[in-house]
Amino acid sequence: MSTYQKFTERMQKIADISHASALLQWDQEVYMPPKSARRRAQQLSTLAGMAHEMFTNDETGKLLESLAATNLSEIEKANVLNAKDEYEKNKKVPTEFVEKTSVAVSRAFQSWDKAKKAKDFSIFAPDLEALLELKLQECEYLGYEDHPYNAQLDIYEKNMTVAKLEVMFGQVKEQLFPFIEKIYKAPQVSDELMFQDYDRDKQWAYGIEFLQQMGYDMDAGRQDVSSHPFTTNFSATDVRVTTRINDQDLSEMLWSTIHEGGHALYEQGLKDDYYGLPTGSYLTLGIHESQSRLWENNVGRSLNFWQGNFGRLQEIFPKQLSKYTAEDFFKAMNKVQPSPIRTNADELTYHFHILIRYEIEKELFERKLQVKDLKEKWNAMYKKYLNWEVKDDAEGVLQDIHWSHGSFGYFPTYSIGSFYAAQFYHQAVQDVHGLETGIQAKDSSKLLQWLREKIHQHGKLYTADELCKRVTGEVLNFDYFMQYAVQKYATIYAL
Amino acid sequence: MSTYQKFTERMQKIADISHASALLQWDQEVYMPPKSARRRAQQLSTLAGMAHEMFTNDETGKLLESLAATNLSEIEKANVLNAKDEYEKNKKVPTEFVEKTSVAVSRAFQSWDKAKKAKDFSIFAPDLEALLELKLQECEYLGYEDHPYNAQLDIYEKNMTVAKLEVMFGQVKEQLFPFIEKIYKAPQVSDELMFQDYDRDKQWAYGIEFLQQMGYDMDAGRQDVSSHPFTTNFSATDVRVTTRINDQDLSEMLWSTIHEGGHALYEQGLKDDYYGLPTGSYLTLGIHESQSRLWENNVGRSLNFWQGNFGRLQEIFPKQLSKYTAEDFFKAMNKVQPSPIRTNADELTYHFHILIRYEIEKELFERKLQVKDLKEKWNAMYKKYLNWEVKDDAEGVLQDIHWSHGSFGYFPTYSIGSFYAAQFYHQAVQDVHGLETGIQAKDSSKLLQWLREKIHQHGKLYTADELCKRVTGEVLNFDYFMQYAVQKYATIYAL
Repeated sequence: MSTYQKFTERMQKIADISHASALLQWDQEVYMPPKSARRRAQQLSTLAGMAHEMFTNDETGKLLESLAATNLSEIEKANVLNAKDEYEKNKKVPTEFVEKTSVAVSRAFQSWDKAKKAKDFSIFAPDLEALLELKLQECEYLGYEDHPYNAQLDIYEKNMTVAKLEVMFGQVKEQLFPFIEKIYKAPQVSDELMFQDYDRDKQWAYGIEFLQQMGYDMDAGRQDVSSHPFTTNFSATDVRVTTRINDQDLSEMLWSTIHEGGHALYEQGLKDDYYGLPTGSYLTLGIHESQSRLWENNVGRSLNFWQGNFGRLQEIFPKQLSKYTAEDFFKAMNKVQPSPIRTNADELTYHFHILIRYEIEKELFERKLQVKDLKEKWNAMYKKYLNWEVKDDAEGVLQDIHWSHGSFGYFPTYSIGSFYAAQFYHQAVQDVHGLETGIQAKDSSKLLQWLREKIHQHGKLYTADELCKRVTGEVLNFDYFMQYAVQKYATIYAL
Repeated sequence: MSTYQKFTERMQKIADISHASALLQWDQEVYMPPKSARRRAQQLSTLAGMAHEMFTNDETGKLLESLAATNLSEIEKANVLNAKDEYEKNKKVPTEFVEKTSVAVSRAFQSWDKAKKAKDFSIFAPDLEALLELKLQECEYLGYEDHPYNAQLDIYEKNMTVAKLEVMFGQVKEQLFPFIEKIYKAPQVSDELMFQDYDRDKQWAYGIEFLQQMGYDMDAGRQDVSSHPFTTNFSATDVRVTTRINDQDLSEMLWSTIHEGGHALYEQGLKDDYYGLPTGSYLTLGIHESQSRLWENNVGRSLNFWQGNFGRLQEIFPKQLSKYTAEDFFKAMNKVQPSPIRTNADELTYHFHILIRYEIEKELFERKLQVKDLKEKWNAMYKKYLNWEVKDDAEGVLQDIHWSHGSFGYFPTYSIGSFYAAQFYHQAVQDVHGLETGIQAKDSSKLLQWLREKIHQHGKLYTADELCKRVTGEVLNFDYFMQYAVQKYATIYAL
């Protein structure tokens, strides 16, 4: 067996363990009986420790070292360099620390869940504080330049820094904020049609139909229900989505399904031959999110798409929708308004939800802000950026699951993803003849093919900057999003 | 941390990995999308290898050795001695061999599945042969006295040997065979009522009701559908059952539910405090099966039980059942007749299905019988013991999943379990005042309490022989089963 083969085998075994973990987590969200929470947390901690231990074992180091000296193909080189980088990063963190963090996460998740139900941040605060301390310690293990938060950002979005985000969110504030202000002053659109009685079973069936129309392969995945929709995968041949269904609000199922579908298409489009290797896994969370947002917003919230699809929806819900047109539906789904819940926000104010979390996290990692003051800070920020009076902790500081998972530095990838999505979609329209007329005719296969070819299949072969340049000729540029927003919302709000 | 605590922690980690494996297997049977079979097999192989590697690591050996010299409580001692025994057994088998076997099992399972659909044994034969060779090699690794098959038997039923089984199956042949012959000659009973249109959803709901009535805790488990019903657990707080539903045959759901429910009550009755330790896990497969058979046969196929429960069933299926009595139902479910499929057999001819497999396996491990001649041997045995002309391979040599899992020596535990069940139930009736009147009044809690106290909670604290003696005053004795059979079937067939 060649050294490269040995390396591949080792990486695949580590992937096997991580994917087993992912199944345990999936099950925890969708089917696990309540009494087994404690044992499941323990099992997850053990697997996290084992994957970390195996990856950071000297054996991996030796393989990587001897591979550095050999002649490798471009793809092999990308696998080795990426793995080496991850290895060095992981090596800095002791296995016991990983296990300890896993246990702290399970504990924090449980108290967050309890706190949210009780609408009482104080139930969650002590566990969050403990978890934050671990994450701050993790920054020291990992090392960073300029800002400790950079160490966290880099986990989800390689090479992302506070300095870059200051520029990006600066543009959001300078350009998006005044644009939204203009919208607020324009005559409002109605979204009433979304809030009617929509049968759950029919919604469920339509979600599946929708996924299949997008090109999602039901033989290499499945859909289930969970309270927080998510996508997970245990290989490119088993990529699962979950959705949630609200029988009084059609939009929850619709956009969670198309959003998760976008993530899932990316994972199904990775090369199964590179299972366990960097080129067989997603590039960054921002790129991952670009795929979900592209489908959710650029496709799923476009007039074009619904001109082709609204008829089917009317067929399923005649009583609710027959008196409306595709244009009414399009306007309803794009109503811009301040709101307390990030996941329900329109695609413009959405970025202020992210900005708030970004600024809070940055201050937490500067130790400028303490957990005990988090709630007040949150409420003040919602007042400042969204002019929203937070009514309780459940709609306020407790709304997101992320911090209970120990995920700090994750939120910015949502905005990054939306901005990438606008840039990619703009390029796709240029590159692919008949792309939008196809979508209008319920055929998005050309778009999927373009995404597969340009983005999905490469995994981590390039950096995000390189990929973006290869696909669009330049690195991430916020202008595409603003252009898209101005053009789209000018028609909706007759600006 | 004391040495014993270190030992406990290590054993729990190994259990974490094994339980993760079990979840991957559960998922494979109930929800996994078809395209991921290959990657799942790989993941299972990796986890099997890791659990084996961790258990057989010298670290475990050192802990066990130093514990041998310390002062331990009775329970601690049982944990250490059992673990030591397992350790020594596992140590004899190289980890690569475990991984190789896991891969061979996945392959064999897939070709068995294909072969069964095609009703063609030749599709399965080569993979079965390869797997059997591995199992034969495993016998050499493990070592044995007298007979290589003993090494396999011991895996599922500690201390079980060919010599003991010869005695047991000798009794089956001598006593049960002539008794069944007598039944065949008596006027037959009708089982027509079982074969009507029974709505799937109603069956599903009744199954859940049934499990809860038995005392199964739905907050520490769940029910799903699979083609082969099974019970699995990931801790005593997460014990899952599956069932199958045939809308033309009520008995499939009923007896698979009560059977798996019996297994599940055992697992839910183990002490969660001893998670990962021998005293926190089931004793032997024979004892496990005694729990499912006791509920399935001694309770679930008794007139007493249905005198209390038939009314409810009539309520759910009035059209199908209102014209019948509990006694009709009791007779229908106990019809004795030769049949080709083990899992559908009545509880008497059942043991000839096992006897056939036992004799075949014994000869395979003696290398007297070859895989290429297996089909002919099977068919000849069915002719000899059940006077059944096997019509095709699907109802013949391919009917069971076990060999495709590499499980040889497993089948005898089904008969052992039934015989234990008769002996335990006989004792329970002696010990517990009002046990049978309670069951007749739909309250089996006293029986469950007795099983919990006498059997479940002990895990592997005693050997099966010791446990049986403690509970019934003697070791396994076939007479109890014969007594039960003679008494019950004499009334049904008016012998």
